[in-house]
Amino acid sequence: MRALMLDAAGRLSLDDVGEPRRQAECLIRVTRAGICGTDLQMLEGYASFTGIPGHEFVGIVTDAPVADREWIGRRVVGEINVGCGTCVWCARGVKEHCPARTVLGIRGREGAFAEYLALPAANLHAVPDGVDDDVAVFAEPTAAACRILEQLAIETDTRVAVVGDGRLGNLTAQVLGTRSRHVVLFGRHPHKLKIASDVGLDAQPADGRHNGRFDVVVDATGRPSGLARALELVEPRGTIVLKSTLHGEVGLPLWPIPVQEITVIGSRCGPFAPALTLLASGAIRTRPLIVGTFPLSAFEAAFSKARAETKVLFAPGNS
Amino acid sequence: MRALMLDAAGRLSLDDVGEPRRQAECLIRVTRAGICGTDLQMLEGYASFTGIPGHEFVGIVTDAPVADREWIGRRVVGEINVGCGTCVWCARGVKEHCPARTVLGIRGREGAFAEYLALPAANLHAVPDGVDDDVAVFAEPTAAACRILEQLAIETDTRVAVVGDGRLGNLTAQVLGTRSRHVVLFGRHPHKLKIASDVGLDAQPADGRHNGRFDVVVDATGRPSGLARALELVEPRGTIVLKSTLHGEVGLPLWPIPVQEITVIGSRCGPFAPALTLLASGAIRTRPLIVGTFPLSAFEAAFSKARAETKVLFAPGNS
Repeated sequence: MRALMLDAAGRLSLDDVGEPRRQAECLIRVTRAGICGTDLQMLEGYASFTGIPGHEFVGIVTDAPVADREWIGRRVVGEINVGCGTCVWCARGVKEHCPARTVLGIRGREGAFAEYLALPAANLHAVPDGVDDDVAVFAEPTAAACRILEQLAIETDTRVAVVGDGRLGNLTAQVLGTRSRHVVLFGRHPHKLKIASDVGLDAQPADGRHNGRFDVVVDATGRPSGLARALELVEPRGTIVLKSTLHGEVGLPLWPIPVQEITVIGSRCGPFAPALTLLASGAIRTRPLIVGTFPLSAFEAAFSKARAETKVLFAPGNS
Repeated sequence: MRALMLDAAGRLSLDDVGEPRRQAECLIRVTRAGICGTDLQMLEGYASFTGIPGHEFVGIVTDAPVADREWIGRRVVGEINVGCGTCVWCARGVKEHCPARTVLGIRGREGAFAEYLALPAANLHAVPDGVDDDVAVFAEPTAAACRILEQLAIETDTRVAVVGDGRLGNLTAQVLGTRSRHVVLFGRHPHKLKIASDVGLDAQPADGRHNGRFDVVVDATGRPSGLARALELVEPRGTIVLKSTLHGEVGLPLWPIPVQEITVIGSRCGPFAPALTLLASGAIRTRPLIVGTFPLSAFEAAFSKARAETKVLFAPGNS
């Protein structure tokens, strides 16, 4: 099959490689795969990952172990963490914190920027018929946004700010907007703020006006400046949700955390079932985020566009 | 009266000044005042405070407004935040986050390193007869440790680490030890670890061995390295309580917060009533922390000793 390969120097190439065959796992033909901020960071050396990147996908199961043969032919999305199955975290069902986990396209496991990928059936979720591939491919980042609803009580009158007008910021603001009537998205990119407005969000410039501080501020910028801005926007005793994985040593003024008794909650992967429900309901609008769909062979153009704009998809079957 | 005065250059002097007279407040003759890490930081320019520092005290009420005359003659400790009385925070009874608050010896209000100080009667707590001055003077930092019990559920089997073997780290470990059987204090100073052992704590070198990670880690070091160590010690999805006010831009590896979904909770001032109860019960041992009691005139020796060791007290009546 054809796949994008990332080498240790952060270089991508389109290679012919064998299909991923993992014992007791399903084989999935990838129909759409999304480029995410983490993929862009990995090209800069994060996670020391080499191999096939990509972890947002939708596809069709083409082969499965005997016990899972009912999955064959189904259209699926998939949770990206695969646990060891024996540690205390796996025993609690929290495979995303298994110390020996592999993570699709991120850690020890070939990813989705390929014609095929492999995952255990336990990781798969069938895509409802009414949800087409260009919507279903948002399941993983929408699940990451839904993780916040597991971590925090967001009520109708909770004042929420989301810092970051990119892919994840937009989805997060939409997901939190299904609970709160007071969600403001702050961003630095006029074209991304326009998309945010188009999907119905209250979109403001990064240093824009706001009426008082916020009970909950989500940093989805991927940059230290996002956390710094969140510390300015949050109410004393308020909560910052940190979605940005900030690499290296980050220089930030942290004194507001103790002085204003702020809570900072790290937030990573989330539940797929509510994400698919939200996507199927139409409550989350994803189409305006898609700025291009590319064959794997056009990876340079695709990554370049993903750096500057919002969601870029691969259609590996067209490569 | 005589009082220590801090000038804008961070210099201390012993001056003759007028007694603090504030309308509708009580006048208190200070019998003991403790030097805290915040006082040491203020001498390095933190908070741009000028005037009389000091916020840990015990004293006798010598004068009071007509409505509060029953306080005269009582031995008291006092909450250090004085709110405006009219904002939403004051309406909720949370004067420590009133944006217009003054704070004893820290912000807009003369402090305790003086023969007299002034506070509203609403801030005062009578000291039980069995608690002598050298114990009662620990009410404020013990209350700060008790704040953690308001913020987090600490159970018998919660695995707790406290990073920092100084004044606040020691008290915090003792307070959390009244709830959990699994509290380990990590520190870098053999003489302070010895005091920690003497009061019954499980005291370990900063890089010492531990059996697995901790559910809750408190950073009470006052240094960025303490938060960095806390991030190493905490379990995925665990909680770090940040007591250290880290000034300026702090360079730290913050990636574990999102990747391991760690919660960081800022924690500041706490409730005096449970602190006095714990001190009166003898559950918290404070005497081994006291390394010297000085007249105000010996402030240079006192601050020098406070920098290197644990609790140093002033006895302003002996100045």
